[in-house]
Parts: sequence; structure tokens; C-alpha cells
Amino acid sequence: MTYTKAFFEQLDKQDPLASFQAKFALNAGEIYLDGNSLGARPKAALARAQQVVEQEWGQDLIRSWNKHQWFELPYRIGNKIASLIGAQDGEVVCTDATGLNLYKAVSTALQLNPSRKVVLMEGSNFPTNNYMVQGLLSQLGDDYQVRFVEEAQLLEQIDEQVAVVCLTQVHYKTGRVLDMQAITEYAQQKGCLVVWDLCHSAGALPVDLNGANADLAVGCTYKYLNGGPGSPAFIFVAKRHHNRAQQPLSGWWGHSAPFDFKRDYQPGFGISQMLSGTQAILSLTVAEVGIDLMCAADMQALRKKSQALTRYFIELLDQECGQYGFELVSPRDDEKRGSQVALSHAQGYPIMQALIDAGVIGDFRAPDILRFGFAPLYNSYVDIWEAVQRFKSIMDNEHWREAQFNQRHAVT
Amino acid sequence: MTYTKAFFEQLDKQDPLASFQAKFALNAGEIYLDGNSLGARPKAALARAQQVVEQEWGQDLIRSWNKHQWFELPYRIGNKIASLIGAQDGEVVCTDATGLNLYKAVSTALQLNPSRKVVLMEGSNFPTNNYMVQGLLSQLGDDYQVRFVEEAQLLEQIDEQVAVVCLTQVHYKTGRVLDMQAITEYAQQKGCLVVWDLCHSAGALPVDLNGANADLAVGCTYKYLNGGPGSPAFIFVAKRHHNRAQQPLSGWWGHSAPFDFKRDYQPGFGISQMLSGTQAILSLTVAEVGIDLMCAADMQALRKKSQALTRYFIELLDQECGQYGFELVSPRDDEKRGSQVALSHAQGYPIMQALIDAGVIGDFRAPDILRFGFAPLYNSYVDIWEAVQRFKSIMDNEHWREAQFNQRHAVT
Repeated sequence: MTYTKAFFEQLDKQDPLASFQAKFALNAGEIYLDGNSLGARPKAALARAQQVVEQEWGQDLIRSWNKHQWFELPYRIGNKIASLIGAQDGEVVCTDATGLNLYKAVSTALQLNPSRKVVLMEGSNFPTNNYMVQGLLSQLGDDYQVRFVEEAQLLEQIDEQVAVVCLTQVHYKTGRVLDMQAITEYAQQKGCLVVWDLCHSAGALPVDLNGANADLAVGCTYKYLNGGPGSPAFIFVAKRHHNRAQQPLSGWWGHSAPFDFKRDYQPGFGISQMLSGTQAILSLTVAEVGIDLMCAADMQALRKKSQALTRYFIELLDQECGQYGFELVSPRDDEKRGSQVALSHAQGYPIMQALIDAGVIGDFRAPDILRFGFAPLYNSYVDIWEAVQRFKSIMDNEHWREAQFNQRHAVT
Repeated sequence: MTYTKAFFEQLDKQDPLASFQAKFALNAGEIYLDGNSLGARPKAALARAQQVVEQEWGQDLIRSWNKHQWFELPYRIGNKIASLIGAQDGEVVCTDATGLNLYKAVSTALQLNPSRKVVLMEGSNFPTNNYMVQGLLSQLGDDYQVRFVEEAQLLEQIDEQVAVVCLTQVHYKTGRVLDMQAITEYAQQKGCLVVWDLCHSAGALPVDLNGANADLAVGCTYKYLNGGPGSPAFIFVAKRHHNRAQQPLSGWWGHSAPFDFKRDYQPGFGISQMLSGTQAILSLTVAEVGIDLMCAADMQALRKKSQALTRYFIELLDQECGQYGFELVSPRDDEKRGSQVALSHAQGYPIMQALIDAGVIGDFRAPDILRFGFAPLYNSYVDIWEAVQRFKSIMDNEHWREAQFNQRHAVT
């Protein structure tokens, strides 16, 4: 078939998630396809920020720790995130940054598997995960090591040497989805624990950590959960592992009796031990607004729309720009693709710059990848049509030749 | 002499810092003496939060990493903090939480002194520091240990076994100031490195890290720097130690080429390596407002006012409530007292509750300590008079007997 604008307009009319778009502050005329890097702003985030600054900080001051339950925020928001990723109440806290939580998670997993010393990761992973694990292992001694593999060798490299398999479910560059259930089961049969990074999964597709019998997981809230720039991350520990190991970033919020001000550390029960110190309350409170919005969405409908948005974008690009030599880096199979489309092109950098100048906001990843993230809560089907028309115009007219080389790389 | 209200009114008229009070949002009729726990809100913080949420996040979205220099914030704000604590440009970054920065700092210091295995700390320290060091040492192996001492034995316990002396300059409970210069010099003569915690120093009194030849330091921004609840902390590394050790929380913001997305970690140069991952931008941007205000103040005038506020509070309490059995826990010597006054009393808990009910906001620390923090930027001299009159009324009328026992402990 040949796609037309009317086709996409019709899809928008039938979209069960269409009402969410009005909850977001979007720039008129701009098509924002970078929610896989920084999610758009929920309109309600502004009033929430004002309330926290004016009332909770300004007026209630120190009393807010009780009155506005600031101490409870990591648990309350954690439980909301838990509902999005197949976890139970009390298995997730919202706290700190993703890399720090990964440090806690891998350290915990290594303690739970003390006879083995290898952490297996994808070398092409978003590198901060590699870096944090390298930092952790440098503390533990020379007998610990990272084994880097790529997807094709993944299963064969999961063997009896491996203590912990640490994988990102949806690849930050290609958008490829790993089979969480199958890999977890296989790795556990080999005697490994599995730590999942859900940065590009949470709010992008249904995740079922307990259904997959996952051990630990981490993820961020500023991409598909629309929590705001650098908003606090989350960490999941399956209940069966609670109280069996102690993570090393052992601050007072993770103590069993934080207000007793005891001299020595005594880990708190359950997920509380994954907390470290005082949290960035303003960022944390505002993050809850985006998470609440996601909790109101049906995750199956969201996945269906995400697959349709990315599929139609790929197919319309084939139709309109097929002659320009783009290669699809993301899987064409809907089941294996997260909520983004990655293309490669030798002129990827200036083409992305021209797209941004034309109000189609994606991002570029070296050496040659153009990434387009689709957020089903605020991207419409007509966005696809409009984005590809602008894309076609840039290619037809070679506008990318004039594009200014003023873009620094944006965040993952 | 006998103190009168007129005396304090006269001091306010002569106060060179008086104009700062109007920059803060304070509750009418309330005397806030808990800035040593959570600093009051600068009025300008509200507009800044609105701007970041609406424009930087909402409109400029991913472009803000460049357009609003989000990546530069830890350095820009770090340099401002550096100017308050006797450090140079490029020696401080504003990032993460205090405990996490302490973990980085002590780990770095241990690497710089590899033949020794002991970290010396005050057992009565704010305990999260102890906990974080215990967590760190648990990673490093059984030959590492913490040696807890108290102030009276401090110097004699700094010996050739000690790798790192890790001390909080101003004690969180008593407000006692340690002699940074003398202790640093003594410890370095014994072959130790010194890590200073400035949580109750930064913005409370002049600090001269380089004048004292300090090695590393950490501190928070939500107390006397008025950065907002849980606002990001800071870390200082003296230039002579740059590029000589690698901290283990090695995320991509500390990489030498973060946007090359290399597989393996390579530490960045200088202070940049103390960064870990993506920062909580909303909390970080708003923190800068309070730090800017502090940078506009003369630190010598601030110290002089701080000493006067705390001294007159102590002396007026002696005059008005001398018969009620309070004991001064803070040093009476101005030079040895930070910007807070701690008293002990067997009925400390209900008395503090009655004070809070009467609009005098201090806090309570078990088992029997009442803490009153004085922030020279927004506390006036008449605040002392008014606070003590309410204090006297509570004691004279035994109002504390009725005080509700509904206060949970507040944050340090």
C-alpha cells in the first residue's frame, strides 16, 4: 500500500491513548522524537515544582520531612514504578542515578554468588554501565573481571565462570530488545544472577520482572517516564534476595534505624537498604508527575501504539526516502524493536542537524547513526507523516549540505 | 550587663548583612533556627525553578544540554563553591550526595597512601560518614579498618598506621569547630592524608582549604548554602592530587571523552573524574541561586555576625532561663563554635516541641539535645530576643508539659 496523510489521521482518531497528548507541554510545529533521551514535560510538572519550592521548602521548611513525607518518596514512587515493570510493592525504590544503582545492584549480585568472579556485559552497551562495573571490580581485586560480549555470542558466553549477567534490555543505539525471560532462565540454569538495565524499557514497553524471575534491575525515569532532566533513577531487588547481601553505598537512609544515629552501619530490611543518603527532593517530587501519567496508561495499548509508530515510520521512510541510502539499524521485527528507530547514513550528522533545524528533533550517535524515539503518550501518528515529509524535503533539496555543524552530542 | 530588646534592635541597625534578609522567603512571626538542617528559601529560587521547568526542560528539551550548559553546571557551581571554601577554580564540582562524594574522596585518599590501611574518624560524627566508609572498606578487604576516636584522643591516635584522617570540621550535634590547619599539618607530618567534611562549615564560617593544605573535602549545599532540600553536594580535590588516583564510582561524566562512547573507562583530567553520571538538573540549577547569594556576602562579616548571634543567644538564655537547668553543649569560646547552639536538658524533646509550636523552629537530637542554627544571611539580632522571650514563656508556664509528642526527628 501507499501511505497517505489521511491514513495517519485516521489512526489518530482511533488511538485509545490520544487523550494523553494534551497532558504534555509540546512546542507548536515541532515533532519531538527524542523522548528516548529526555522525555517531554508533563504540564502538571510546573505546578508541582512551584508547590514544592514555595510551600514545601519555603513555608513548611524542615517540617516537610514529615508533613509532606519526603522520607517516603523513594518508596512511594518506587511502588508506582514497580507497577510498570512487573514488580511488587516493596521491591523498588526511586533514588540516586542509574549508574550508582547499577553499582549497588552488581555488587549485591556478586555477593550472592561468591564463588564466581566474572561479570558478563555487552561491550556495545551504553558505556556508563561498563564504566561503573569496571570501577566496582577495581575495588574488589584482580581476580574479578568483566567479560564483554556481543549479542550473537551472548548465550554461549554465559557459562559456569560467570557470576552476574548484566544486560540492557533495549539497546540504547539500535533499539533492539533482548528476550528477558529466555536469557534470565538460561543464565540462572548456568548458576548466574541477572541484572537488567531498563533505561529504554520502563514506560516504553511492558516489562514483567517477576514473570521473568529477574534478580535485580535498574533504570532511569527521565526518558519514557518523563520525570525531568536527570531525575532520580530506580533499583529493583527481587524479594527472595532481600536481606541476604549488603550494598556498599551504605548511607544513613539505608540504615535499619536511621534516626538512632548509631555509630555503626546496620542495613535496613528489604529494599530500604538500597537507599544511600539524602535525596534531591525537588527532582524527585517532580519526577512523580511523569510517573503518575504513565501509571494511568494501559501498557499493552502503549506497546501496540509504539510498535505501530515505529513500524509506520520505517515504512513511510522506505516509501518517501528509499533512494537515499539509509540503512535500518533497528530490528524490522516489531517484537524485537523497542520504542525507537535507528538508521545509519554516511552523512548522518549533517542530516540530523538539518532535521533539527526543520523542527524534527532526533539525535545522532557516532559514527553514523540517526536515532528517533517514539513516545506513545505524546507522539501522534500524524507526527510520522509530518516528520517524514520534512525528512524528504531535506533529502530532495540536499538541505543537509548547509546544516550548521553546531550540534554537540546529546545525552543517551 | 542586662540585655534588652533595644540592644538587639540597635545591632540590627548596624548589621552590614541586614539587606540579605529580604532576599529570603520567611514565614511572618516565625523564627527559623534550623538552617543548619535545611536552609531557608531564597525568593529567586521560585522563578529559577519555573524557568528550568518551563523553558529549559519544556521548550528547549534535549537542546538544553548545550543551550543552557547543563553539562557545565557541576563545574560552574563548583567554582562558585570553591570561592567560599578557599579552593581554586577547577578543584571543586557540585554533584551527587555528600555520602557518595565521601566514598569517592576516601577511596581516592586510600589509593594515594597505599601502604596504610586505617581510616581514622570521630565515632560521634554524623553517622552516614561512618557508614559510607564502612561500606567502602567492606569492598577493599579485611586488612582495611576504621579507627573511631573522639576529639580528646584525636591527635594521639593519628599515627603511622593511619592512611586517611576523615573529620567533620564542625560537629553536627555540638557545633564544635576543629582546627583544620593544625590537624591537617599534624596528620600530614605523620604521613596521613586528610579528608574534611564541610557540611556545617560551608556558608557558616570562612574555610581556607588551600591555606590549610587540605587534601580532599566534601560538603552539602542544603544547609547554610540554601540550595534546597537534598540539593547536590560538592567534592574538593587539591590540584596536587589530580590525575594520581581513580575513584570507583566511575560513570560517563567522569570519562576523558564522554561522548566518544568508548567501551572502557578512561578517567577524565583534573576534577572532572569526580563526576559519575547524569545529574538531577532541577535540583542542581535551583541550588545555584542560594550559592550565588552566599557568594555575594562577605565571609568575615558573616562569621562575625554568626559568632555574635550565637553568643548573644547563649547569654540571653543565661539571663532569662538560667534557673531551668539547661547545659550548654556547644563551646562557649566563640572561636571554637560554629553557627549553632546546642543545649541539653532532660525534657529536651517536649521543650523543643513546645518551641516549634510557638514558632521557634530548632530541632532535637537524641538523647537530650536542643539544636538552634543561626544563619547570618536571614536571622536578625532581634530574632534572638524574640526566640528567648518565647522560650522563657514556655519554661515559666511549663507549656512543654502539654506539647504534643508528634515530632519525628528532622534531618541533620
